[in-house]
Amino acid sequence: MLAGLDQRTASIYAPIQPKLARVEEHLRSLPQTSLPDLEPLLSYVLTSGGKRIRPAITLLAADCYPHDQEKPLIMAGAVELLHLATLIHDDMVDNSDLRRGKPTVTKLWGKDVAVLFGDYLFATSATFVCDTGNVRVIRRFAETIMELASGELLEIFHAFDSQDARRLYQERIYRKTASLFCTAAETGAVLGGAPEPQVKALRDYGYQIGMAFQMVDDLLDVLGDPAELGKPVGSDLRQGVLTLPSILLLERYPENNPIQAMFRQRKQNDGDAPENPANLERALEIINNSGILPDCYAQIRECCRNASQSLELLPDCPARRSLRDLADYVWERSR
Amino acid sequence: MLAGLDQRTASIYAPIQPKLARVEEHLRSLPQTSLPDLEPLLSYVLTSGGKRIRPAITLLAADCYPHDQEKPLIMAGAVELLHLATLIHDDMVDNSDLRRGKPTVTKLWGKDVAVLFGDYLFATSATFVCDTGNVRVIRRFAETIMELASGELLEIFHAFDSQDARRLYQERIYRKTASLFCTAAETGAVLGGAPEPQVKALRDYGYQIGMAFQMVDDLLDVLGDPAELGKPVGSDLRQGVLTLPSILLLERYPENNPIQAMFRQRKQNDGDAPENPANLERALEIINNSGILPDCYAQIRECCRNASQSLELLPDCPARRSLRDLADYVWERSR
Repeated sequence: MLAGLDQRTASIYAPIQPKLARVEEHLRSLPQTSLPDLEPLLSYVLTSGGKRIRPAITLLAADCYPHDQEKPLIMAGAVELLHLATLIHDDMVDNSDLRRGKPTVTKLWGKDVAVLFGDYLFATSATFVCDTGNVRVIRRFAETIMELASGELLEIFHAFDSQDARRLYQERIYRKTASLFCTAAETGAVLGGAPEPQVKALRDYGYQIGMAFQMVDDLLDVLGDPAELGKPVGSDLRQGVLTLPSILLLERYPENNPIQAMFRQRKQNDGDAPENPANLERALEIINNSGILPDCYAQIRECCRNASQSLELLPDCPARRSLRDLADYVWERSR
Repeated sequence: MLAGLDQRTASIYAPIQPKLARVEEHLRSLPQTSLPDLEPLLSYVLTSGGKRIRPAITLLAADCYPHDQEKPLIMAGAVELLHLATLIHDDMVDNSDLRRGKPTVTKLWGKDVAVLFGDYLFATSATFVCDTGNVRVIRRFAETIMELASGELLEIFHAFDSQDARRLYQERIYRKTASLFCTAAETGAVLGGAPEPQVKALRDYGYQIGMAFQMVDDLLDVLGDPAELGKPVGSDLRQGVLTLPSILLLERYPENNPIQAMFRQRKQNDGDAPENPANLERALEIINNSGILPDCYAQIRECCRNASQSLELLPDCPARRSLRDLADYVWERSR
């Protein structure tokens, strides 16, 4: 069993457990076949934990169909590697010192190495996908990298900007998070040989579970036990990033709104002077003591329910049950 | 004609001029079909000049054979886009303010945007390659991105380190520069339908011309007219990067060597104190007034001759003559 898994995920992954172990083995063989200079970096990121949710989705999607055994395994490895590459660049951009309780690549090796090593991992993940020999899957993979990068760019470009916030939030979290869940599920289905309507259903499953996953993350940021979060409560808002709870706050309290005050102040002093922490504190307080949280839970629950419903088209099998359990698990994570 | 071309390159590109214009058109249509937030960035990098040598090589390689007209065009666009993506990340890592006389993406939009926008361009170039539908070519392309990134990483890891310098120099300049020239030529040949020995010959042509191209760049850095260079003379050595002339200096003057003194000093003060500029000045002076420069020219000339010789296997045609002229042009650039 993977070191990072709790009992719940381990039981969800049961139908594909031996396959997931082989994906892990494949990933961990990378450092031995690379340039000696890259070995410490590769070993570090590949043993830094994580629940392997995305590759599990690829394997479970394929597992609903009788299929070539190798290709989904290779694809699952590519999906995880791509995820690890994005974490390295995201941590660099966010100036994060810690990830899963361990120092980030940026912290240990510096920004320059983080950028170039991230590039190296992106490209390595692409060579994995090439080994599937399936051009449709390769193309989706490349498009996904475009979506991931542009999602992060939207976050930067629209920081401290409350215009059109709800539409941009949907677009942004699709790009930066849900797109890789979509691709994980879709490529598993394609390589598993699923009929086209079921490929579409699995892609939709990935979309719904990915959107829910990011909304849970965003909710934890305002609720947060900072110890579990690994960063201070309200980091998103502090960086000018609007998420579902803060958007609801903006929509519901048009008068004397602490977020508007915070953004206005930032604009006035051009980001130079230290901000008045009272606005952030008031925003978090209203979010935590109003009808906002229940409405966030309701939206997350709806996405998880939609994810489960997408699975109805699929053949009844242990893998389908695991995909359903995974949707429940994402929902439970928010509670 | 492309704005950035001088008369010499324009005449070399003559056999493929209409095709190169179509590649340019394809690239310049990108901003209109992307997210509105990315439009200014895309327009900026796509109109920032450059001689388009790499896509020209792809088109010329394919042009030696009767072939499908579209695929080499798409590939040439991908090759140029990949080159532009690497420039963005390299300028970020090198903290460069200027590129071809214009402010870099990092300078105008900041490091975070440069990293993520570079990622976006890498991925966009990969979607272009997918449009060729040729898995062999797609795989080479992904491997090339690994090589480019690892070449830059080697430069960082071995800065201020004179061990095994000559072998590492060959490895490093292959990865960071020649690999993309190899891939430009090889993929043009594959998509043009060249017989396998001629694919190999064109790959070898790319290797030789790419190695020469980087050695010329490295030579200009120590000779340099800073105005044309866009950076101070001796930048490589100042950053601890050994290139052919400084490696020859290390090999030939084992006693009282200014580079060894510079690196030793750096190690002693851990890079904190400002360095004594006398060592750098002495190193540049010896390089410029000894037998070192003629030997550098000789090595560059040999690579360019090897490049021309690789072409002998190819059918005699205007494109082959242009590839030969291009090898001469790289050689002339150094004089």
